[in-house]
Amino acid sequence: MHSASKSWLLLSGFVLFYIIYLLFGALVFSSIERPAEDELRRDTQRLKEAFLNQSCVSAATLELFLSRVLAANKHGVSVLKNSSSRSNWDLASSMFFANTLVTTVGYGHTTPLSDAGKAFSIAYALIGVPFTMLVLTACVQRIMQPLVLAPVGLLQRSGLKPRPATVVHFLLLLLAVVLCCFLAPAAVFSALEASWTFLDSVYFCFISLCTIGLGDFVPAARPGQPYRALYQVAVMVYLFIGLMMMYLLLRTFHKMADVHGLTTFFQLPRCEASLIDDDTEPIVGTDPTPPRPKDRPATKPLDPGSQPSYNSINKG
Amino acid sequence: MHSASKSWLLLSGFVLFYIIYLLFGALVFSSIERPAEDELRRDTQRLKEAFLNQSCVSAATLELFLSRVLAANKHGVSVLKNSSSRSNWDLASSMFFANTLVTTVGYGHTTPLSDAGKAFSIAYALIGVPFTMLVLTACVQRIMQPLVLAPVGLLQRSGLKPRPATVVHFLLLLLAVVLCCFLAPAAVFSALEASWTFLDSVYFCFISLCTIGLGDFVPAARPGQPYRALYQVAVMVYLFIGLMMMYLLLRTFHKMADVHGLTTFFQLPRCEASLIDDDTEPIVGTDPTPPRPKDRPATKPLDPGSQPSYNSINKG
Repeated sequence: MHSASKSWLLLSGFVLFYIIYLLFGALVFSSIERPAEDELRRDTQRLKEAFLNQSCVSAATLELFLSRVLAANKHGVSVLKNSSSRSNWDLASSMFFANTLVTTVGYGHTTPLSDAGKAFSIAYALIGVPFTMLVLTACVQRIMQPLVLAPVGLLQRSGLKPRPATVVHFLLLLLAVVLCCFLAPAAVFSALEASWTFLDSVYFCFISLCTIGLGDFVPAARPGQPYRALYQVAVMVYLFIGLMMMYLLLRTFHKMADVHGLTTFFQLPRCEASLIDDDTEPIVGTDPTPPRPKDRPATKPLDPGSQPSYNSINKG
Repeated sequence: MHSASKSWLLLSGFVLFYIIYLLFGALVFSSIERPAEDELRRDTQRLKEAFLNQSCVSAATLELFLSRVLAANKHGVSVLKNSSSRSNWDLASSMFFANTLVTTVGYGHTTPLSDAGKAFSIAYALIGVPFTMLVLTACVQRIMQPLVLAPVGLLQRSGLKPRPATVVHFLLLLLAVVLCCFLAPAAVFSALEASWTFLDSVYFCFISLCTIGLGDFVPAARPGQPYRALYQVAVMVYLFIGLMMMYLLLRTFHKMADVHGLTTFFQLPRCEASLIDDDTEPIVGTDPTPPRPKDRPATKPLDPGSQPSYNSINKG
C-alpha cells in the first residue's frame, strides 16, 4: 500500500476511535447520571407541589424552597414546567457533555451529580483530553499542505518576497477563519436560537472556540427544541472543525513568527520545520531504511534509537 | 548586563505585564458589569417581595416567578437572602473572572450581563489568551533546566541508559505534580470549603487544571466567605502555577515521546531541541554576531533575515 494512503488510514482510524470514545463516554455518563437526575427531578417537583399546596407563604419557607430550587438548577435540573420532561443525560446530550469534557470547552450547563459521575469524568478526561489533542494535531498536520504551504508557495511564485508572503497568507487565513468559523456560524445560531442576538452568537462562537466555555449560551438547550439530537451532533462537528481551524491559525502564526525572528526574540520554542518534511513524505509504514539526506540529522527522528536524550542535547 | 539577567528581566516584565493586564481587565469588567448587576439584583429582590405580598400563590404566578429567578441566577445574581449583599463584580471577583477568561478555564459562575461586557470579553480574551500562553511558555522554558534537564542528567550519570532515564524522570515528575498540584491543594480546598468532600476537591483541581472549568465547584463563592479577596488571589496563583506544571508535564511527555520515536510513529511535530539551546544560551540582547557552531544552521534562527520561508523549507 502507498505510504500516503497508510497515513490517511491512520488518521481515519484516529477519528473513528475518537467517535467511538465519545459514544462510550455518552453511554457511561447516561447510565451513571440518569438515575441521579431522575431522583433530583422527582424531589424538586414534589417540593414545588408541596410549596403550592401550603396555605400561606412565609419568607422562611420561600427561602428554603428557593435554595433547593437553585441547588437543583446548578446540576441542570430545572423546576419549570416546560423543561421538566427532557433529560440532560439522554444519549445525544451525554455525548455533547463528553465532547465538551475532552475538548476542554466545558460549558458546565450540565454537570455530574453523583460521585461515580465525577470520578468517571476525571478518568474520561485524563485519557480523552490528550487523545483529542492528538487527533486535532494529526488533522491539522494533514491540512497544512493545502491550506498553508501551497498558498504561501503560490504567493511567492506570484512575485512576493518570503516574509511579506507569510504575512499576506496569514491575514487571508485569518479572514477566512473569522468568516467561516465565527460570522457564518453566528448567523446560523442567531437564526436557530430565538433568544440569541447576533452579538450573543458571535460571543458564543468565540468563547467556545477559545475553549473558555462559560456556558451562559449553550445551543439546543431550549425546552422543546426540534431535532435536538441532530442539532447537538452538528454543534459537536462545528466545535471539532472550529478547534482544528483555531489550531491551524495558531501554528501558522507560530511559523510566521519564526520566519520574522519573533520566537527567537521572546526565547520561545520554534515551530518545527520537520513538520513540513513529514507532510510531504509520510513516514509511517514506509521502508524502515529510506534514503535520507545526511545533512540534517537533528530535524528528522526516523530512528528512535538514534534519538539524543535531553541530557546529550544539553551537553552537545 | 549579562544576557541571562536580561532573559530573566524579560520574563519578569512578562509576568508584571500579565498582572497589570489582569488588573486592567478587573477594572473594566467591574465598571461595566456592576451597574447591570445591581439593577438585576434590585429587580429580583422587588420580584421576591411582590411574590411574598400576594394573597394566594397560583401555579402560574409561581412559574413566572421561578423563571425570572432562574434567569437572574444564570448571571450569578442569587435571590437568596444570605447572598444578596455580595457582588460578583467587585475588584477581586472581576480579576478572578478575567483570570478564568485568559487561562481559558472559564467556570462561568459569573458571566457578563451587558452587551458591552460581552464585547469586551471577546476583545480581552483575543489579546489575553495568546498572551497568557506566551507567559506560561516563557515560564516553562525557564524551569525546564532545573526540573527536567538537570534531573535526567543526574539519572543518566547514576548509571541509567538515556531511554529508561527519561521514563523514570517522567514518572517522578508526574508523581510530584499529582501530589503538589492535585492532592495537596485538594486537601486545602476540602478544609476551606465546608460543603466540598475530598473527591469534590480533587475533581475541582482536575477540571480546573485541564482548563475544562465546568464551574459546578468554584472556590470562595460561599456567602460570607472570610478574606474572600485574598482567597481569590490565592486561587489565581494556584491556577497559574498549576497550569505551568501541567504544561511542563506535557512538554516533558512530548520530549519523552520524541526520544522513544512515538511522535515519528504518529507523524506529529517533534518537541523542539532548540529550546534547550535557548535555555542554556540566552540570546536576547547578546552580541549580534556571536560565534556559533556552523553545523546546526536549522535549529537556531538567530538572524531573522536568514529564515527560510515555509515554501523554501518545503522545496529545500
